[in-house]
Amino acid sequence: MPIRIPVVERILQANDDLADQVRARLDSAGLLALNLMASPGAGKTLLIQETVRRLRDRLRIGYVNGDIATSLDAERVAVYDLPVVQVNTGGDCHLDAAMLAPALDQLPLGRLDLLLVENVGNLVCPANFRLGTHLNVLIASVPEGDDKPYKYPGMYRGVDVIVLNKIDLLPYIPFDLDRFLHGVRILNPDLTVFQLSALKGDGLDAWTEWLAQRVAAQRRAA
Amino acid sequence: MPIRIPVVERILQANDDLADQVRARLDSAGLLALNLMASPGAGKTLLIQETVRRLRDRLRIGYVNGDIATSLDAERVAVYDLPVVQVNTGGDCHLDAAMLAPALDQLPLGRLDLLLVENVGNLVCPANFRLGTHLNVLIASVPEGDDKPYKYPGMYRGVDVIVLNKIDLLPYIPFDLDRFLHGVRILNPDLTVFQLSALKGDGLDAWTEWLAQRVAAQRRAA
Repeated sequence: MPIRIPVVERILQANDDLADQVRARLDSAGLLALNLMASPGAGKTLLIQETVRRLRDRLRIGYVNGDIATSLDAERVAVYDLPVVQVNTGGDCHLDAAMLAPALDQLPLGRLDLLLVENVGNLVCPANFRLGTHLNVLIASVPEGDDKPYKYPGMYRGVDVIVLNKIDLLPYIPFDLDRFLHGVRILNPDLTVFQLSALKGDGLDAWTEWLAQRVAAQRRAA
Repeated sequence: MPIRIPVVERILQANDDLADQVRARLDSAGLLALNLMASPGAGKTLLIQETVRRLRDRLRIGYVNGDIATSLDAERVAVYDLPVVQVNTGGDCHLDAAMLAPALDQLPLGRLDLLLVENVGNLVCPANFRLGTHLNVLIASVPEGDDKPYKYPGMYRGVDVIVLNKIDLLPYIPFDLDRFLHGVRILNPDLTVFQLSALKGDGLDAWTEWLAQRVAAQRRAA
């Protein structure tokens, strides 16, 4: 199927151009935007709920949810009374910049400090499509296993931050933390890693404090 | 990007034609072939290891592993001394029939009873690409959450069997089994569902016995 390669290249170039435009809009608004990626069931939405709950008195937060078909996740976060936009990809395995751009039109960007963009649950496809956000965050989880950096190098190489979620399950699951972290570091030596349990609360403060500091730095730079 | 839809249609049609050819080869060899799909970390490889370990004295089993970049999973299964073929997709998020066909050339099809094809870990992409295998098996796992049938309807609608793995973690995780099964049944009322723990062994016998019966039925039909 030799037709596939040139077509994908053209899509990726068009996506990169749109991602640059998205970035310019975000920068001019002075907010920090995160692209949150993960395998299905790693706990993206619960982490976002807990992040919003802990930071909403200090930061003005917006949320874009990307999903194939439903708005189940968006509804879970919307209970915190913040601007929420749902993007349904209609089957596509990832968000792209062309999907994020119209979502931004629905948000009061100038009155936000932090924008959380939840990508489709997938460890392969989202790595190829820049959104124009400032930080790529990968949420890994203990039950997925310690071999994932080795098996999904494209995703692990392309991210700025890893949140290892569900550490409360470490006593019940064979998971070699050193093997996981070694796999992460050989791909991406400068990565910031947080270990936490969004369900039980362990480690969440370090994550939210770091996030608040990054938001403040982004404001100063704007 | 209106160019995307016609190109994908041509790829899917070409894939379906190749899947028909794969099916004809499998049928003429009289073996049963499974396409095992799952989210990353649902436990596909451990389930395959345990299935092989329990059935290898009764059935002649072959194994094809599809992964993006490594042969880590294939090596885990190869210790059981059976015919194993690695297919690296080079970044693609799924196997397709064009990747499976040359793998079959490397296997002694006429001397196998059961062929296990492990797809790339992904809940979106593999649903769109028929391989020509007889049964599509989805391995779900308790830590992924009870909402997955609702969020990944394409995958859950297209499978014949669901194995719900990691039931040993039910005491430690909020997972509503009724909600999960309801979501499965509305999409796919005739589905066969197994609940088991590949790690602890609970429920594995029911799965392997069912599989052995299906292999016997396939032999009789050939």
